[in-house]
Formats: sequence, C-alpha cells, structure tokens
Amino acid sequence: MCAETLFPQHVIARKRDGHELGRNEIAAFVKGATDGTWADYQLAALLMAIFLRGMNTAETTALTEAMMRSGVVADLSHVPGLKVDKHSTGGVGDKVSLPLAAMVAACGVPVPMISGRGLGHTGGTLDKLESIPGFRVGLSLAEYAAQVERVGCALIGQTKDLAPADKKLYALRDVTATVECLPLICASIMSKKMAEGIDALVLDVKFGGGAFMKTLPEARTLAEAMCAIGQAMGRPTRALLTRMNQPLGRAVGNAVEVAESIACLRGEAGAGAEDLMEVTHALGAEMLMLAGVAKDADEARAKLAATIRDGSALAKFREIVVAQGGDGRVCDDPGGVLPRAKFTIVVRASRAGFVREVDAMAVALSALRLGAGRIRAEDTVDHAVGFTRLIKIGERIELGGVLGVVHASDEAKLDEARATLVAAVQIGDEAPASESLIVERIG
Amino acid sequence: MCAETLFPQHVIARKRDGHELGRNEIAAFVKGATDGTWADYQLAALLMAIFLRGMNTAETTALTEAMMRSGVVADLSHVPGLKVDKHSTGGVGDKVSLPLAAMVAACGVPVPMISGRGLGHTGGTLDKLESIPGFRVGLSLAEYAAQVERVGCALIGQTKDLAPADKKLYALRDVTATVECLPLICASIMSKKMAEGIDALVLDVKFGGGAFMKTLPEARTLAEAMCAIGQAMGRPTRALLTRMNQPLGRAVGNAVEVAESIACLRGEAGAGAEDLMEVTHALGAEMLMLAGVAKDADEARAKLAATIRDGSALAKFREIVVAQGGDGRVCDDPGGVLPRAKFTIVVRASRAGFVREVDAMAVALSALRLGAGRIRAEDTVDHAVGFTRLIKIGERIELGGVLGVVHASDEAKLDEARATLVAAVQIGDEAPASESLIVERIG
Repeated sequence: MCAETLFPQHVIARKRDGHELGRNEIAAFVKGATDGTWADYQLAALLMAIFLRGMNTAETTALTEAMMRSGVVADLSHVPGLKVDKHSTGGVGDKVSLPLAAMVAACGVPVPMISGRGLGHTGGTLDKLESIPGFRVGLSLAEYAAQVERVGCALIGQTKDLAPADKKLYALRDVTATVECLPLICASIMSKKMAEGIDALVLDVKFGGGAFMKTLPEARTLAEAMCAIGQAMGRPTRALLTRMNQPLGRAVGNAVEVAESIACLRGEAGAGAEDLMEVTHALGAEMLMLAGVAKDADEARAKLAATIRDGSALAKFREIVVAQGGDGRVCDDPGGVLPRAKFTIVVRASRAGFVREVDAMAVALSALRLGAGRIRAEDTVDHAVGFTRLIKIGERIELGGVLGVVHASDEAKLDEARATLVAAVQIGDEAPASESLIVERIG
Repeated sequence: MCAETLFPQHVIARKRDGHELGRNEIAAFVKGATDGTWADYQLAALLMAIFLRGMNTAETTALTEAMMRSGVVADLSHVPGLKVDKHSTGGVGDKVSLPLAAMVAACGVPVPMISGRGLGHTGGTLDKLESIPGFRVGLSLAEYAAQVERVGCALIGQTKDLAPADKKLYALRDVTATVECLPLICASIMSKKMAEGIDALVLDVKFGGGAFMKTLPEARTLAEAMCAIGQAMGRPTRALLTRMNQPLGRAVGNAVEVAESIACLRGEAGAGAEDLMEVTHALGAEMLMLAGVAKDADEARAKLAATIRDGSALAKFREIVVAQGGDGRVCDDPGGVLPRAKFTIVVRASRAGFVREVDAMAVALSALRLGAGRIRAEDTVDHAVGFTRLIKIGERIELGGVLGVVHASDEAKLDEARATLVAAVQIGDEAPASESLIVERIG
C-alpha cells in the first residue's frame, strides 16, 4: 500500500466507501489518535464511518492490537503460570470480581485484574474496593506486576500509560454519538484487557434489563466478536452469557457489596447469594481450565469449592487487601471496618405472594440517587449507601416481609428509595417459571 | 421537539440512524458551526453521517437556508427588476461569466455575481478579472449593492460575511473525506448564491472529462437537486447540462481568457469560440426568461445577439471594469493592456487528420503547472500564462498545423506544456461524430 493512502483523508475515504482497512491504515489511525497527528475531527469522521460501515474480525483485531500497543503493555512473563483475568460487561450488584479473584488466585492461578469505576447504572470494582479503609487501587504498573508475582493477584485501576488511544477515542465517541458500535466496543474492552499482560480471558457478557445488552442475541454477537479477537491475538477467550434481570446477590452499593463478597468467601452466603456464587463458580471454572490447572469443569469446581471450605480464598483476599494498604480486619468484621450509612430503613411487602420481578435497573438508579454511583465521571461516590437484604425472584414473601433494606446518608432520600424498591418488586400469586442464570458458553 | 434532542450528540445520532432531521436540528448544526458551540469533531461526525445516510430535499433546503442565514444576506430589494445570476460547476476554459454578465446586464437585467477563485484544474472568474490592471474584486457588500443598482452588474469575490458556515464546513469537509456528498455540495453552492440577494438562478452543470461530474447522470442528479432547493426557497432555478470534454473556447488561462471574452463581446470571435458563445447565449436566454424580459427563447436570443451587434454588451463590460477600478482600455486593446507572457511557442501537429479529442483535464493541469492556477488555496496565480489558439474537436488539421500556443513565464516550462498539448490532442483519419454541447435543460 502506498504511503499516500495513509493521509487521514484517504483512510477515512476508504472506510467511508465500505472497504476493509489494512493493518497499516488502522495503525496510522490509532497512532494519530495517540500522538495528535490526526485532528479530532478526522478521528470523529472515521469513527462515524466505522459506525456505519462496520469492521470485520481482522480489522477489529488490528484495531485492538494497535490500541493495546498505543501505550505500555504490562509484562508478566516473569510470573510463572498462565495469567487469566475476567471481564464483565457490567450489571447491577455485580461484585463477582471480588470473590472470584481471591478464589482463582487461591487455586494458584495468577489473576492480574485492571478494573474500572462505576458510571451510570453500573457500579465499579474500584469503588467497591475503596470502601475498604486504606485500600489503594492506584498502584503503578511495576507495583502491580510485583504484586501479581508475590500475591498471585492485584486489583488495580487503569493507569494513564495503558491503552491511551482508548481513552482518547472513548472520550470522542462519547460526544459524537459513536459509542454503540460493536467493533469499537470490542476494541475498547479487549485492548485494555490485553494490555494487562494476560494469557487468557474469561468474559461475563450480561443481558437483560440491568445490562448494557438488553437481549440475548445482542450479547451473543458481542461475546462472539470479543472471543474471535482474543483467539486471533493468541489469547484464548471464553464467554458466558448471563442473565441480568434482577440484581446479582442481595446487596447493591459499595461497602455493602464488599460485605456480601466477604460473607461468600467465609462460606456464610445465605439464601440469595446463590446466584452470585453460581456465576462466580462458573466463571472461575473457565479460568481454571484456561489456565490449565483443571482438566474439566468438575475438577475446577471442586478446587474452587475447596478454597471456600478451607479458608484459603478468604486468606487470599486478606492478603490482597493488606498488600494494597487496606485494613485486613475487614475479613473478620466487615460491619465493624466498612463505612456504615447513617440511616437505614427496612422496606416491607404490602402483600403476600411470590416475587415475580425485581427490576435491576430501577434498583440501580435508586442506588445511584442515594449516592452509590456516578452520573458524570467526575462525581464522587458515597461508599456507605445502597441496598441490602434484597428479595430475589421466585422467593415466597408474606405480608410485611422484607423486600430489602435501604442505607442512606441523607434521611430525605429514604422515602424515594423505599418507593422505588416497592415499585421495583412485582409480587404475584404464582411462582414464576425458573430461568437459568448462565444461558450460553461461547469460545 | 424537545430541547434535549438539540444536543449535538442527539442530532448526530438521529442522522446516524437514518432519520430525517428537522429544521431546528439543522439550524442548531449550522449555528454550532458558525459560532463554535459545536466542536469540530461533532461537525465532522455529522458530516460523515450525512455523507453516508443522505438528506432529502426538505433537509437539504433547510441546510441551505440555515447556511445562507449564517451571515449577511445581501439586500438588493432597492434595485428594480428581478436579479438573476448564473453559477457554473466549473470547467476548463470556462470564461462564460465575463461575456454573459455584460450581455445580460446590457439587456437591463441586474446581475449580482459573486464568484470564486480557481483551485485545482478549474480556473476562477476572480483570477481572470484580476488580470485586468486595477480591477478590484474585493468590494464590500454595500459597494456591491450600490454598483448593481448603478451599473446593473457587479463581479465580486466572496466576503467573509457571506455564508460563513459554508466556509467553516467546507474546510472541514476537505480534511474529513466528506466533499463528494450531494446534499452538502448543493447546500454549499446554493447557500452562497442565495445570499447574493438574487431572485432567480441559472446553473451551468458541466459533465465530462474536464468537469467535476464525469457523467451525465451525475450532473443531472446534481442539477435536479439544486433546482429543487431553488424552487423550495422561492427562487426559480433552471439548469443546463453542458458537455465539458474539451476546453471551452480556444483560450485557457487568465489574461488570455479575458482577451477571448472581449473578442467575443466585440463580435470578433472566430471559428472555435462558437462553443463558448453557444453556452453563453443559452444561459443568457434562460436568465432573460427568468427575469421576465423575454417571453421565449427566440426573443431572448435576439436581444442577446443585439447587445453584441450594437456594442452595448462591450460598453457594459467596460462600465463594469471601470466601476471596479480596472483599466477600461482593455476593451479596445486587450493585447496592449493585459499582462503578456515572456515566452510563447506555437505547438504544431505531427500528422494531418481530424481532431478527435482535446483532453480538457490534461490541458487544465498543464496550465496549472504553467502557473495559471492554484494547487493550494494560498498559492498565487500568474495571470499571463496559459494556452491560446487551441484546436477544437472536429476540426481538420494539416501536418504542421497549429494545435495551440503555449504562453509561459518560465522558458523551462515550455517543453513540458508542448508535450502535454501534443499528447492531449488525438488526431484520426475520420471526423468524429458531432455531439451536442447543451444536452439537457432542467427546472
């Protein structure tokens, strides 16, 4: 390909006209985004052309690789064993990363995990972890690599060195109506994950009312696209499609989700955290198989279950917390160490029956209004607020039975949260048909 | 429509998804381009979405109107009579505006004409006029309006007050691969023309090797779209589709084209400027009919012919030249007043036969290399250089007969121009089939 075609206008025109872009054209685009040699309006024009013309797997893979290489790619080659991470497309009450990382690391599989913050209706693993007093998510990449080697896991936030092209392009997409574009979504997610220094990846692609993807076919398309990129990059990638119609577990917030995670790690998860642990075990089994430490799902599940029984997962979580400056006593006494909301109210059912629906999005938006999340990226989070003891679909409830507990820092917000929760829970005379939580496995 | 949809992202998303944009959405876009409240990357994203999704006539008309109103709209209501202008999509040797403006104005129809400069293979009326010593194209809009009233015609350049949104959007389109987009092309042309203060418009839409539109169907589509906009804006608009396969007339350059125009106005046009005058008379007839000073084409053509015969067109041209500061003696002695190139060579045929082709684009690019045009907008033009006495398709030539004369300021450039001209002219044994110059009339 001659150099002339690498002028921004020529690359834009080729995608505009529906052609497949070559690796060097995509590399020029990503380099231009990173070093500023492409103007923002040229990046925006190409993003819109990609939105409307699409990209095939080869193009999307080339885009992912170029974005991954736009910054530092963590080198974990000195850490023995296959490094495996998990990524979730985001749901309500999704605290899976916390127990999962500890359990998988306790099985001897290194888990290098770089997470995000909450935005809109989805919470963020970093915000949850920061509700543990002292917990530092802002490790340098060197500290991160050293901790993965020493502890077997690090739970950190995105650094500015990691896939800077994604940061640039994401900000542009946000203001140019080019966010909801499959190849751009895939490349954004996968470039950051691949820059972590992983050998394999498990994806939790959620669908339903509380997820970004509202339908199973959409989730399947996204999962297939990301698995194809992972394979093409030599990083085996597997995806589970999981239902996100009600909050996962019984807690939604930050400190309350850490407390629920620790309860699970302590083997105390009562009725209702089963869905949380079902997803956690299923994702963990895939990670163990990809890492080659379990030959099949049965062996993997047995190993994971053992880490709860023998306390090794809880010990690993404590080790991670302490390594990152957090108060390890949170593992013994979550209620005593984690921040607590000033006001709580128990929300009760006004009729008896079977729970037919718990609207995940309504609960999430209510938690957001309580202060648990961010409307804009620059907002601060109130770690103490949220919901606990949420009722689950299919459960039988009596008149006056508990629908959930609201935790608020502002007394004035209690009533609205109560009303939202009451409206979010549909109670009927008959038990709903039970639906599987993990619907498909891809890759 | 609620205010929320006027956020740039929402307008972009609506066009991205193939919806018809409303007048207020289009107005918001154009206002954003003009006052900077839309970022360049948002403008670029919408331009690409328009490129790929298109715009219907209602949208394109709304865009044209909004762009027209982004700056000053000239008010010529104090000038009696219907004001009519002509716009050409650009060709090689296209000096029609010069004789046409004088002839139509001599018939009593006010001609307010705002023209552009040459860029790439097409020359610009302003550059041609500026080869007349002293000629000022940079009149203010007030001077322009006063001259149209006093003289019946002004030939000026775009002012910064006129359709500033077009200037902004055109510059962005140029660097984001969104130039070749029908609704954007139409709105760009028509917004500037409508801002002149005209009542009606005649379009010369050229097609062929020396034109922007290579084929008749493309030219027809463009013409129909522009006529529809003109009608929708209450300014009757008519288009002629004219063939542009060889240079129009026998001169290509700036001073040489002024000299040819004056020769035509003096009634001296020998064989070969027939095509130039055929187009000029045809466009002029449309202008006179639109202005209501001729009831049909025959009457219009008779009036136009009379302006040549009785010298009134030449007198009008002199009046315009003098009004704009130019040396009126150019009308009596073009050769003595206009700049002359230092070097000329006569290019001769190496065989006898019939001229079957004169490659307009090759001649245009050769003139560009001689210095007659601009590669970039900031280049300066050499008014003296170009071609004269160009042979025409269908003419019989003898061995050693004249193919044309090269005018150059740099002796070193003579050989290349000679070689280009020799290669541009195809001579065969048989006369080519004659083709009509004016192929269709639209509107």
